[in-house]
Amino acid sequence: MSVTIQLTPQAELSAAIPIVLDKTRQPQYGRYLDELEPGQVFEHPRGFTFTTSNMLYFARTFMQANPLYLNSQYAHAHGFADLLASPQMVFNVTLSLGVQNDSEKALANLGYYQVQFLRPVYPGDTLRAFTRVLERKDRGPDKPGIVRIRTVGVNQNDGVVVQYERKIMVARRGTRPPTTPAPQVCVPFPGEDTPLVQLPLTGHPVSVGLTGPNTYVEDFAPGDIIVHANGRTITEEHMALTYLVGNSHPLHFDRLFSSAQSGKMSGEPIVYGGLVFAWLEGLASRDVSEHAVWELGFTEGYHTQPAFAGDTVGALSRILAVEDVPGMDAYGLVSMQLLGVKNISAAAALEKYGADLFIKEDGKRDLGKDKITAKIFEIERRLLIKRRPR
Amino acid sequence: MSVTIQLTPQAELSAAIPIVLDKTRQPQYGRYLDELEPGQVFEHPRGFTFTTSNMLYFARTFMQANPLYLNSQYAHAHGFADLLASPQMVFNVTLSLGVQNDSEKALANLGYYQVQFLRPVYPGDTLRAFTRVLERKDRGPDKPGIVRIRTVGVNQNDGVVVQYERKIMVARRGTRPPTTPAPQVCVPFPGEDTPLVQLPLTGHPVSVGLTGPNTYVEDFAPGDIIVHANGRTITEEHMALTYLVGNSHPLHFDRLFSSAQSGKMSGEPIVYGGLVFAWLEGLASRDVSEHAVWELGFTEGYHTQPAFAGDTVGALSRILAVEDVPGMDAYGLVSMQLLGVKNISAAAALEKYGADLFIKEDGKRDLGKDKITAKIFEIERRLLIKRRPR
Amino acid sequence: MSVTIQLTPQAELSAAIPIVLDKTRQPQYGRYLDELEPGQVFEHPRGFTFTTSNMLYFARTFMQANPLYLNSQYAHAHGFADLLASPQMVFNVTLSLGVQNDSEKALANLGYYQVQFLRPVYPGDTLRAFTRVLERKDRGPDKPGIVRIRTVGVNQNDGVVVQYERKIMVARRGTRPPTTPAPQVCVPFPGEDTPLVQLPLTGHPVSVGLTGPNTYVEDFAPGDIIVHANGRTITEEHMALTYLVGNSHPLHFDRLFSSAQSGKMSGEPIVYGGLVFAWLEGLASRDVSEHAVWELGFTEGYHTQPAFAGDTVGALSRILAVEDVPGMDAYGLVSMQLLGVKNISAAAALEKYGADLFIKEDGKRDLGKDKITAKIFEIERRLLIKRRPR
Repeated sequence: MSVTIQLTPQAELSAAIPIVLDKTRQPQYGRYLDELEPGQVFEHPRGFTFTTSNMLYFARTFMQANPLYLNSQYAHAHGFADLLASPQMVFNVTLSLGVQNDSEKALANLGYYQVQFLRPVYPGDTLRAFTRVLERKDRGPDKPGIVRIRTVGVNQNDGVVVQYERKIMVARRGTRPPTTPAPQVCVPFPGEDTPLVQLPLTGHPVSVGLTGPNTYVEDFAPGDIIVHANGRTITEEHMALTYLVGNSHPLHFDRLFSSAQSGKMSGEPIVYGGLVFAWLEGLASRDVSEHAVWELGFTEGYHTQPAFAGDTVGALSRILAVEDVPGMDAYGLVSMQLLGVKNISAAAALEKYGADLFIKEDGKRDLGKDKITAKIFEIERRLLIKRRPR
Repeated sequence: MSVTIQLTPQAELSAAIPIVLDKTRQPQYGRYLDELEPGQVFEHPRGFTFTTSNMLYFARTFMQANPLYLNSQYAHAHGFADLLASPQMVFNVTLSLGVQNDSEKALANLGYYQVQFLRPVYPGDTLRAFTRVLERKDRGPDKPGIVRIRTVGVNQNDGVVVQYERKIMVARRGTRPPTTPAPQVCVPFPGEDTPLVQLPLTGHPVSVGLTGPNTYVEDFAPGDIIVHANGRTITEEHMALTYLVGNSHPLHFDRLFSSAQSGKMSGEPIVYGGLVFAWLEGLASRDVSEHAVWELGFTEGYHTQPAFAGDTVGALSRILAVEDVPGMDAYGLVSMQLLGVKNISAAAALEKYGADLFIKEDGKRDLGKDKITAKIFEIERRLLIKRRPR
Repeated sequence: MSVTIQLTPQAELSAAIPIVLDKTRQPQYGRYLDELEPGQVFEHPRGFTFTTSNMLYFARTFMQANPLYLNSQYAHAHGFADLLASPQMVFNVTLSLGVQNDSEKALANLGYYQVQFLRPVYPGDTLRAFTRVLERKDRGPDKPGIVRIRTVGVNQNDGVVVQYERKIMVARRGTRPPTTPAPQVCVPFPGEDTPLVQLPLTGHPVSVGLTGPNTYVEDFAPGDIIVHANGRTITEEHMALTYLVGNSHPLHFDRLFSSAQSGKMSGEPIVYGGLVFAWLEGLASRDVSEHAVWELGFTEGYHTQPAFAGDTVGALSRILAVEDVPGMDAYGLVSMQLLGVKNISAAAALEKYGADLFIKEDGKRDLGKDKITAKIFEIERRLLIKRRPR
């Protein structure tokens, strides 16, 4: 079926249409605390098509060292159908898909929990995402509330690629206009309760030259602390990168909006945390994840301080556990902490703060310790990493 | 046929070749007023190949909300052969193709008129462009003249994808060296006088979740004013984006050039207007054009003030007409004004300037009104938009 | 073969793992003077997959005018299998692949020599690179040494695409920790001693409109000096572009690192020279290389002054030789000098410095001349260029 339109010259209409100011509206997006109900489900707008090039662009911009995300030939040699999208990209895109429904009115992102990666994302895949509201904690009329949500990203075949929970801080609507309701959701809320990841790995391809010699499972032991040498100065690039992954929160790219915020949130646009996480993960990658064949996921992720254009971020990792995987001789499971600092090198931060750097910021008050304001991020990750080939 | 070259070591030659300064030349590009003649036709250099990734990159950088430009699966579901290039990208690329022949010497872009989009642009398409000079108005030796041109963009099958007219302000050459002549054009000047747009639409696909609930034809009435909530702070990114779409005018990326301009044009590189228009259209998109299946075109487009890195732009739309289309129950034709402001939020601008914001800047003197210097852009658009599915 | 992982909820481990600071390591990358031995061979990490889109993105960001790198249809019409990667991109990517092994500890890049391009690079190609150490000049304990290396880039079929030599300035390790050893190389060091370039050219396609009229072989004569009109203001974009081509040297994107350098190297991140070269080559391209069908290579390339964000660069070319190619009527070989200046227009630099601009900076002391600090780059290039079609 076809639609045919004859294009005629376009008449200038504006002067003939009376300007009536009472027909004004200003659509609002995001969701206020009182517009969120446990059990509510949202389907997120637009979707996101992945291509080889946008996957490479993300992986390289965010300093990825694992060739699975950089080198199509390497990915094929491992048994994958094609180049893999980095988990950072899959996570960032999925979270960003949800911003217009979930968090465009949020004051802060309070944590990432139980992020799980279930299926590879390949060039040509298109992701959609859904969110279910789990809990809403109203803390009274003078304080913003806390909402816990579950978000699931699916591909064009309705296969779940990523699922996670997030806590956000959201204020009540008060006298402000309501937000645009999300369209009614006609499909069951997706997700897998007992997710099984199946990877088409074909064993160790013999291409040791493309990675380093010191990042196999045998090179990690619980307690190891790895200081990542290079830092990354974030520039105003972050504003465009925010929309490139699909995040529509104006705090990140609208200086009028960011400077109109109250209190200590007021000022320059804040770098979207997902980008900060991606840069930190990239800075760490050539020391810890070159030989990862799968990122199982992460949890307890906190952006403990904001970052701005002009800040230089650095990263450290601490190995928490190294485990065998039954039936899988060629791989081991490595759990690790990833931390980010700003405006101090990772080495200098370790020197200055010592062991306290690795203590969760949230737990410091109970321990009678000061928070470390140079620390910007902490999270725990689990990766499936190759054993050293024999 | 094949060409074979034996590579030999390259000898260092420079010291042996006498440096003769009188063999100096400085090729000039663009066209001065006295080098333009009504009837002249130019074929523009280089061309531009579209890919899924560069289409997605443009659409996302410029904040597009219509999934036809973001989501290949959604575009296929509508009946299109593939993802569509956003009309903003098609327009920007076509205009930029012409800069080296038409406007690289121009002092200002005075208006866009009767821009019509005739055919979809898909990944793999390569566009070329042609310009014919329509009119040249010489205003005397002390003033720059005004030139009216018609530009047509065609694809690799010589199908017209976009055509429009533009007015530019151009100075006489005076004592300056002449510009590089354009190569002789061997093909007829393209274009369609009675353009017929044929879209392979297959009716409403059932995927309401990827767009919002309030942007169908029924949601728009003449006189409606829509304030778009988010703004966008433009950074120095604009300089690289200028060349990414193919625009070679140094005013946008050469600070030595921009600061050497005389009078009030002198200073920082000016943001290429096409990029400003694209950002404004993107800021408006999730409130007005999510459900557009075709942008018929636009006219009376004026960049009334320049924008610079550091400016935050905001947008407003005003609905001018809503019409049925004979034989097309599923769609309606919506005409609307799009305005841009800078360094004031769209809402604050409406509050401050009221109805005057929507009056054409050019007509204000006659009405005894002051121009609004916070206003940077105005244009009238026509879109074919979906009716609400039953 | 498949690997299956049951994903279980991730336990929070950090608090239970004792923080032991003596298990700290900080992997180092690059190579110190005393870690380099003539004859050593390195295989470089990661590799780099080229796509149509990342090739177009590079070509357009760096202002390329030759449609072979911008327009797939044009490249096909010439007989090439697909769009070509610009030689600038091939060179930049290959050099960057080697940084982690060769020059991430280098203090300066001292010169590019005998760069040869052997095979086209097409979308879908994946490049790997290898380096052999040729010479190491130790200049005593108080001075950094000079190392000469040979680097070769190969595609997925082990065809050599580019090969060159480079000199870098490297300090001794002293008390600093050793760098991560490169993995043992299991393949012979690639390269061709008598390289034969075979191009699938099919003769002049008749599409003169896509290029200008004054850039055929007949338009160049030895001694011609060409001032390129436009400049390019480099912004902080350079930091992200560094990693986009794969270069991991923190001097370019880590302000803490760059400001901690000693002496006159201390300050803002320095623009990676390969990007500067690419911008200069792009600024020159529409005046000298629009009709090039092959870049044979370049030599004697020197970054004589650093560039920083905020600098505006300009370019000049000087024709050194124009030669017939036996058996190839349709093409000629043009050798030329390319120079870069900063913060002065190319025209003003020629006016101010005259013939001295074209004298190699390195040779000025012997001639009793001052170095030109506004000059940032010089190199000699050889291109195979079309003759004017009859």
